[in-house]
Amino acid sequence: MNLLGRQTWKFANNVYLNAAGTAVGPMESEGPLGSYFDKTYNNLHCGQKNWELAERQLMEDAINACLQKVKMKPEDINFLLAGDLLNQIVSANYTARGNGIPYLGVFGACSTSMESLALGAALVDGGYANRVVAAVSSHNATAERQFRYPTEYGGQKPDTATFTVTGAGAALVSKEVSDIKITSATVGKVVDLGIKDPFDMGSAMAPAAADTIAAHFKEMNVEPNEYDLIATGDLSGVGAPIVKMLLKEQGYDVSDNHRDCGLMIYRSDQQVFAGGSGCACSAVVTYGYILDEIRKGNLKKVLMVATGALLNPVMVQQKESIPTVAHGVVLERAEGGQ
Amino acid sequence: MNLLGRQTWKFANNVYLNAAGTAVGPMESEGPLGSYFDKTYNNLHCGQKNWELAERQLMEDAINACLQKVKMKPEDINFLLAGDLLNQIVSANYTARGNGIPYLGVFGACSTSMESLALGAALVDGGYANRVVAAVSSHNATAERQFRYPTEYGGQKPDTATFTVTGAGAALVSKEVSDIKITSATVGKVVDLGIKDPFDMGSAMAPAAADTIAAHFKEMNVEPNEYDLIATGDLSGVGAPIVKMLLKEQGYDVSDNHRDCGLMIYRSDQQVFAGGSGCACSAVVTYGYILDEIRKGNLKKVLMVATGALLNPVMVQQKESIPTVAHGVVLERAEGGQ
Repeated sequence: MNLLGRQTWKFANNVYLNAAGTAVGPMESEGPLGSYFDKTYNNLHCGQKNWELAERQLMEDAINACLQKVKMKPEDINFLLAGDLLNQIVSANYTARGNGIPYLGVFGACSTSMESLALGAALVDGGYANRVVAAVSSHNATAERQFRYPTEYGGQKPDTATFTVTGAGAALVSKEVSDIKITSATVGKVVDLGIKDPFDMGSAMAPAAADTIAAHFKEMNVEPNEYDLIATGDLSGVGAPIVKMLLKEQGYDVSDNHRDCGLMIYRSDQQVFAGGSGCACSAVVTYGYILDEIRKGNLKKVLMVATGALLNPVMVQQKESIPTVAHGVVLERAEGGQ
Repeated sequence: MNLLGRQTWKFANNVYLNAAGTAVGPMESEGPLGSYFDKTYNNLHCGQKNWELAERQLMEDAINACLQKVKMKPEDINFLLAGDLLNQIVSANYTARGNGIPYLGVFGACSTSMESLALGAALVDGGYANRVVAAVSSHNATAERQFRYPTEYGGQKPDTATFTVTGAGAALVSKEVSDIKITSATVGKVVDLGIKDPFDMGSAMAPAAADTIAAHFKEMNVEPNEYDLIATGDLSGVGAPIVKMLLKEQGYDVSDNHRDCGLMIYRSDQQVFAGGSGCACSAVVTYGYILDEIRKGNLKKVLMVATGALLNPVMVQQKESIPTVAHGVVLERAEGGQ
């Protein structure tokens, strides 16, 4: 049995994250992690004629960069597990059309990064795939237009708002020995404490992150200090203190080893309100920076928890609150890895 | 290894479809399969004040009906794998919020029914879950408004258009012995032969269905006559002849055992243009009618191929063609099952 408790998977069969690829836009490449990304663009168009095509370009770039590092082609991959923030996850759909990899579309808003990685790891661990690629993307301009207002409106935002990361991340998962192992994952429940403000996703998502992290600790029977880093996806300056407080209430102190990707990807003097968000936020920070830190030995064991606000404008107009979900994946430095 | 070829899963560890639940709207309950559905509504509101809430009600009804048949509660289930046609799969998100089952959102347009069932079966087969529920929904009025025009416009449609099924279907998958087994599944590639007309999904999806069916035959090394029934999801009167023709070109004759759920769910005198479509089309026909036929012994082995048009209005406005995908699951009468 590879199931611990109700919602945690333990991967007992040596599943590796063999390679990853990242592509980002201008703000992200100018941020503190800029040098960690494989492909950077100096404008939001990414060489394309509209925002949607730009986002698709980013996802294709991330997958291509990932496969090039291990000298593989799309034909070498069994399944692409991918999703993004656009309606009908169109960036993923059209990317899958382009590379021809058998395709499983997934959606958990910004938690899609770890949802796709967790499911991919389970498929490889269980022998249902030799190799999978997990990929996500987000784009500031496509997300603003779809979820709030077109950026051309120049609408003002409160300080609690987050800034959608323009970028994409992809990871190759297989049993081929490598330097990073995927050892467990916890699938989240949908949590909703009643937040209705699409300009405050951090407050909405923090309870989901706390729920998944606490479930992970309980079902794995570990303490927070088991991990060098417990990273959340995009709780931002508003949500990050809340998740720490919620976990402390349950007896878990993560004050020393918690960081939020939304606070890592931009410099404090970049105009991003409370911090970064979007599928790509957790993906590019994890697949760019965190993997590198694990490879260098600066981090040995990381619990990466991607947080998703399942926001839909029609639901907000109908006075619904915003449900949220978070999925966690544990990445470890492989002993004896390459 | 549970992988055959590149994209087919063989479930060797006795995975059963223990129970299913269905809920439908008025047109479906008046159709030829009306008596097979668990819950029927005589108007599209389904007791709710708007269409989106109606669709959510249907998904909740389907899951509740499914669980009631085996006297289970949401707490007994490890994971809900669910999706629907609404942006951000909101029907599934809010349903997961309501029942608290750890949640993996999936999206493959109308192929989501078999995508969720295939992934759920893999998780159970591999020991990553004791019990999963796979669920999908669609609603005529929510889909029309989102993808084409609000129904209140009364816009005219060509005969090639399909009619989105109002309904939801849910299936419980576990290793607990039952009368129906899930024995294999084939994950589809995204196929796009250039159709740009959102009023002709049948022509767009038929090539994806043929691609997945042919891949299934090849990787399982079986002939079409292995199956009593090869059902497609919602190719309709336009797409059904195309899939037969495309398979014949590859040497596979399915003329005797192919049926399309979109042509089964409505009577020929109901005004549904070329036939039914939507996630719920394949789901309610499979989980309502086909399972019953397998239980009765009228069908022994069924290849159910749900077909999805990955349609997005913004992409159509940007002159993109419509990518499509199809996922297949094999359902069999269990020898020695209950």
